[in-house]
Amino acid sequence: MKATLLHGPKDIRVGEVPDPTLRESTDAIVRVTHACICGSDLWPYRGVGLGPDDGSAAEPQRIGHEFLGVVEETGSDVNSPQRGEVVVSPFTFSDGNCEFCDDGLHTSCVNGGMWGSDGVDGGQGEAVRVPRAEGTLVRLPGGSDEALSASLLTLSDVFSTGHHAAVSASVKQGSTVVVVGDGAVGLSGVLASARLGAERIVIMGRHTPRTDLAKRFGATDVVPERGAEGIERVRELTGGHGAPHVLECVGTDDSLATAVGVVRDGGAIGRVGAPTYANIPQSAEAFFRNVTISGGVAPARNYIPELLPDVLEGRVQPGLVFDKAVGLDDVADGYRAMHEREALKVLVRP
Amino acid sequence: MKATLLHGPKDIRVGEVPDPTLRESTDAIVRVTHACICGSDLWPYRGVGLGPDDGSAAEPQRIGHEFLGVVEETGSDVNSPQRGEVVVSPFTFSDGNCEFCDDGLHTSCVNGGMWGSDGVDGGQGEAVRVPRAEGTLVRLPGGSDEALSASLLTLSDVFSTGHHAAVSASVKQGSTVVVVGDGAVGLSGVLASARLGAERIVIMGRHTPRTDLAKRFGATDVVPERGAEGIERVRELTGGHGAPHVLECVGTDDSLATAVGVVRDGGAIGRVGAPTYANIPQSAEAFFRNVTISGGVAPARNYIPELLPDVLEGRVQPGLVFDKAVGLDDVADGYRAMHEREALKVLVRP
Repeated sequence: MKATLLHGPKDIRVGEVPDPTLRESTDAIVRVTHACICGSDLWPYRGVGLGPDDGSAAEPQRIGHEFLGVVEETGSDVNSPQRGEVVVSPFTFSDGNCEFCDDGLHTSCVNGGMWGSDGVDGGQGEAVRVPRAEGTLVRLPGGSDEALSASLLTLSDVFSTGHHAAVSASVKQGSTVVVVGDGAVGLSGVLASARLGAERIVIMGRHTPRTDLAKRFGATDVVPERGAEGIERVRELTGGHGAPHVLECVGTDDSLATAVGVVRDGGAIGRVGAPTYANIPQSAEAFFRNVTISGGVAPARNYIPELLPDVLEGRVQPGLVFDKAVGLDDVADGYRAMHEREALKVLVRP
Repeated sequence: MKATLLHGPKDIRVGEVPDPTLRESTDAIVRVTHACICGSDLWPYRGVGLGPDDGSAAEPQRIGHEFLGVVEETGSDVNSPQRGEVVVSPFTFSDGNCEFCDDGLHTSCVNGGMWGSDGVDGGQGEAVRVPRAEGTLVRLPGGSDEALSASLLTLSDVFSTGHHAAVSASVKQGSTVVVVGDGAVGLSGVLASARLGAERIVIMGRHTPRTDLAKRFGATDVVPERGAEGIERVRELTGGHGAPHVLECVGTDDSLATAVGVVRDGGAIGRVGAPTYANIPQSAEAFFRNVTISGGVAPARNYIPELLPDVLEGRVQPGLVFDKAVGLDDVADGYRAMHEREALKVLVRP
């Protein structure tokens, strides 16, 4: 079958790989109908963390961790989902019954892991062997409704991650929220905050098409300024003291420092931007102002059952973050477009 | 009157200062009967943050932020406490009616501040001018009961700070807790956790007299090992995954890294050790394991009304952290003893 392979920095191609087969009785094979490219896929695409020294991958690496598809085959211990059912996969697999899954923290599952890691398929291909299929996959009862597919696919990662940021920052009915970052995760954070009843949502971002979508998702204010100026502007908008709930959706030193700068004393930052910083900055400021830093990698599997009805019934349309679609053969163009910020988020149709 | 003055690194003396007088109608004058030395007083004592270049103070600096005493005089806008009443002061002053005080975050009071800062008396002296007296001071209804004085004094900072660590780490009935550090704050964190109903309390510390007191306060396990070895030992004691609730009561890079190492995925660290680190370490590990980092400077004023009855009725005895008492004239010996770890915490009797 065909799958996306990362050969080295900015060298991404579709190539032939062996068809996936069941290895464990808890596996399933899913034929992928919809996949996509994540902001975090751009890090290895740019060479970060690839290979041991020179930045080039030792051998071509499978990639992609968001997909929706049809169950083709199941191991003998998989009772659900069944062959022919449409499923969405969270961006990590998990057994669904360890102590962490019981707590809703499927990303820490003792039998879990990441797509594309050693011996595990990536999501940007024609099919995927899904370990722990019963714990991992979520059936989509309506089957495959094309109009909804893009939004259903966001449950895999980006919308669930935005929701995790909001939950980690304790967003609730009537909240005042600041979202740092206007990437697909930031926009999803706006939508998730609005869904949870936030009254005031300030997005910090400077790309008008993106902040326009943020407004459609429920943002009430846009702050294009960055750094000290941006912090000052947000404080002006929030009565001088900042917002009690801040979603950090970028993952850099600067964005985290901005998050600390705009959060109200005693407030919480939900950080979901994959960290490119080694240490959390502004430690003393956060301490003396009693700022809580929460969040992390989103346990999407835990959130999908809660978010799914709102997507199925059209109350939220997180799939609007996709502004480009490519066939699997053109996946390299999708990466290029996201890397060059020409596209916000790219759908891949194998 | 006499007050403690810090002249330079390890040069601390009692000297004559002007008697405090009412400056604002919201002030009170408190005659200090009991004060004490805080671990955080040792930083300026050692020269950290003192003066602009050479570590020596530009002019002698007032010091001390924990005290209990008798109201001697009140400004015209102070209805309570009244002259002659015994009061305890939290380690920051606050107006009690701004939006932060309303939220219980008195350390962020818009009219608040620290003892010993510009134009504000330190607590280690014969008397103190208390700004915002009505918002700041807490009346001790029983008057001054000498047997209870030491424990009542801990409400000012150390016991309230241990309580804040436990609250910030979400300790509750039945919790498994790890306390990093066996200083007076760590021991107070043990006591506060036990008071909140924690079932298992592991203290990380290697000073037997201190860990013995920790056991008396409710610690169930003592881990003397540090670093990777200490983390390993705590994980063994907590089913392999660490504890959901960790109190960081030291404030160094190493202690915070240890806290991240011993916290269970999805758990919370309540940090109250005044940070000597610029940035919070182990950022990526905390992110991928969804560790929440909470806490900060403790809003003691918010906690005193809740903690006071248990102290007054003898259900907790936080004053056991004092293992040395000095008269005001011997305050330098108290600093020396704490600096050399000869004493855990020193009571000062003006």
